Amino acid sequence: MPAGFSFASLPAGIKVSGRPDLALVEAADSNAAALFTKNRVVAAPVEVGRASLWRSGGHVRVLIVNSGNANCATGPEGRRACKRICRETGKLLGAKPTEVFPSSTGIIGVPFPVERVLAKLPELIASKSQSETAAQGFADAIMTTDTRPKIASARFETAGKTVTVLGIAKGSGMIHPNLATMLVYLFTDIVASARDLRFLLREACDQSFNSMSVDGDTSTNDTVLLLASQRSGVSLGKGNGRKRFAGALNAACQSLAEQIVSDGEGAQHVIRLFIEQAGSQEEARQVARAIAHSALVKTAWAGADPNWGRILAAAGYSGVQLDPGKIRIHIADQMVCRHGEAHPFDEKRAHDALAQPECDVRVLLGRGKSSIRFLTTDLTAEYVRINADYST
Amino acid sequence: MPAGFSFASLPAGIKVSGRPDLALVEAADSNAAALFTKNRVVAAPVEVGRASLWRSGGHVRVLIVNSGNANCATGPEGRRACKRICRETGKLLGAKPTEVFPSSTGIIGVPFPVERVLAKLPELIASKSQSETAAQGFADAIMTTDTRPKIASARFETAGKTVTVLGIAKGSGMIHPNLATMLVYLFTDIVASARDLRFLLREACDQSFNSMSVDGDTSTNDTVLLLASQRSGVSLGKGNGRKRFAGALNAACQSLAEQIVSDGEGAQHVIRLFIEQAGSQEEARQVARAIAHSALVKTAWAGADPNWGRILAAAGYSGVQLDPGKIRIHIADQMVCRHGEAHPFDEKRAHDALAQPECDVRVLLGRGKSSIRFLTTDLTAEYVRINADYST
Repeated sequence: MPAGFSFASLPAGIKVSGRPDLALVEAADSNAAALFTKNRVVAAPVEVGRASLWRSGGHVRVLIVNSGNANCATGPEGRRACKRICRETGKLLGAKPTEVFPSSTGIIGVPFPVERVLAKLPELIASKSQSETAAQGFADAIMTTDTRPKIASARFETAGKTVTVLGIAKGSGMIHPNLATMLVYLFTDIVASARDLRFLLREACDQSFNSMSVDGDTSTNDTVLLLASQRSGVSLGKGNGRKRFAGALNAACQSLAEQIVSDGEGAQHVIRLFIEQAGSQEEARQVARAIAHSALVKTAWAGADPNWGRILAAAGYSGVQLDPGKIRIHIADQMVCRHGEAHPFDEKRAHDALAQPECDVRVLLGRGKSSIRFLTTDLTAEYVRINADYST
Repeated sequence: MPAGFSFASLPAGIKVSGRPDLALVEAADSNAAALFTKNRVVAAPVEVGRASLWRSGGHVRVLIVNSGNANCATGPEGRRACKRICRETGKLLGAKPTEVFPSSTGIIGVPFPVERVLAKLPELIASKSQSETAAQGFADAIMTTDTRPKIASARFETAGKTVTVLGIAKGSGMIHPNLATMLVYLFTDIVASARDLRFLLREACDQSFNSMSVDGDTSTNDTVLLLASQRSGVSLGKGNGRKRFAGALNAACQSLAEQIVSDGEGAQHVIRLFIEQAGSQEEARQVARAIAHSALVKTAWAGADPNWGRILAAAGYSGVQLDPGKIRIHIADQMVCRHGEAHPFDEKRAHDALAQPECDVRVLLGRGKSSIRFLTTDLTAEYVRINADYST
């Protein structure tokens, strides 16, 4: 556990199921950085949280999260409710309203049950603890359609002191926009400025949460927050220390990204898509997204079908000015397409590889030296069933 | 039937099923215009057809189409096969190779059975006829995963003469990239230059085939070809005549687009999506595409679920700089979202409307005066079953 963080959670009656749905972290006097959804439609807590971080100069003392209601498409009333919760939570813990960072996840367009949350705040705060059990309770309480909590940690030692990064996330891909927002919280005890944290967080996200996709939809509430309590006594610095911290942060983010993708609802197979020999990172990501968002490619994967023609065609319409004659495609250990044409391979072996819970697919573009690793899933009939049967 | 076109079709043994798979149209000395897939990966006939149109200055005398093999990802050998077919067909009908326009649809990455096609050419040509039955045979022979042939016609009279537009298409959306290429052929007897035809075809396609989507994938073989035999004796002109011809062409294209979308495999519901009050046509199309490609929105429609939050969220990530507070959404006859917030509505009635074979969904952006009509479908478990079970 990183030093300087206390966790609490309880059921506040927001979820119909009666399961825990309100959670809090007291974060000493943390420096903070956050990344938010790029969706133009954003929930009240995203608006409020972004403005508060700006006003506080990147200071956060309390994090308050609820599941069961996204507080999105709720208008001025929703923003008032969110601010009121920040204000009251701050009062009880001696923090300014702008030092309380809010998140919500759950149904869209339903008035936020502000009174229920306010009524539970004292009990919630009284129960906070620095224990691992309390952190696990936090991970449970922020879940919506997730089938399991998502926790990752990494640490390193320097001059006899330990720096810890603890990551807790929820989300099973943007599977229910009403329910499956991605929320990621990263807690560390390193000494670092908000400015440095922002830079490191952006880098770590590019390699993890920005390099994955379940169904291509982007939520209105997606948030990644990094809090640094400064309690380890270890400063970020510039050289090796910074590198080691970046490594720990990336490791935590990548583990959480894998947990999120493999918990994608209805997902049977996780595909590790490697786009190589691209002209740039952005280009590689563009091709990866086209492939990972193709309903045709994803349904082929659901059937463990080594249909490389669909992968080639999706790369072709990605918008990147590819030369199809230079493209090679590998499924697991076999080359299946060379010079943009069929290359003989053992279909049974390719089918068996795609039928595993995880499989590598490599697409070589023959354009340059950039490459990315992109996590995605298949598209199953179960996905359709879940999303067609769920009703507002 | 438009004057100046003879149709022929027969089984050449390209399809395993033994159904008709080779078809031909002799088109007198037609002026021609064509639009092709924007995919960077294109089939041999797309490369050859584009080059031939360029070299002949927009003249086409013969159209030769096969189903069962896309002649895509087949390399130089595939291009040679395609050119050979154009050359031999031209020889038999007294046309230059560049006046023979080729199309293929079917499986990707399998060598093209050129000998089978060549062996059948004399029999194919001997059977050509100007009858409606022959045109229907053509429509049947170009089908792949289509469950029904797609034919539309429109005509108008001027100064005692009739101008006819006959449209024949195949495609059930880009559902199998290996099988469900969209091919559209428009036959008319108006007198018009290739240049005028190109302009009119682009306009008609924007309102029809460029305003529809089944699954968002783009084929490697998609082709729309417009042939004008000049045989009606009616010139296009500039004023009213041109307008009436454009109207007939648009009507034929829109009918074919509706037939293609409603034949989308696994599609239960056709959604007529109206994006209104956009800043521009392009902006309206961008929002329509984001909504029509969202797996979440499409699965909600499969369940006849009036989940407007998913529509709002998809519009939000379309890339258009929307103000969510100005957005209104209507499902059938009811407003369900206003100022980007929930608006009270009868859920049962909205569910019943979405359960119909066709339903209107309107999204008003509050930004300007442009609007488009965009045809799309739901995403069903049947779609996944079809595409997961199909194997290369």
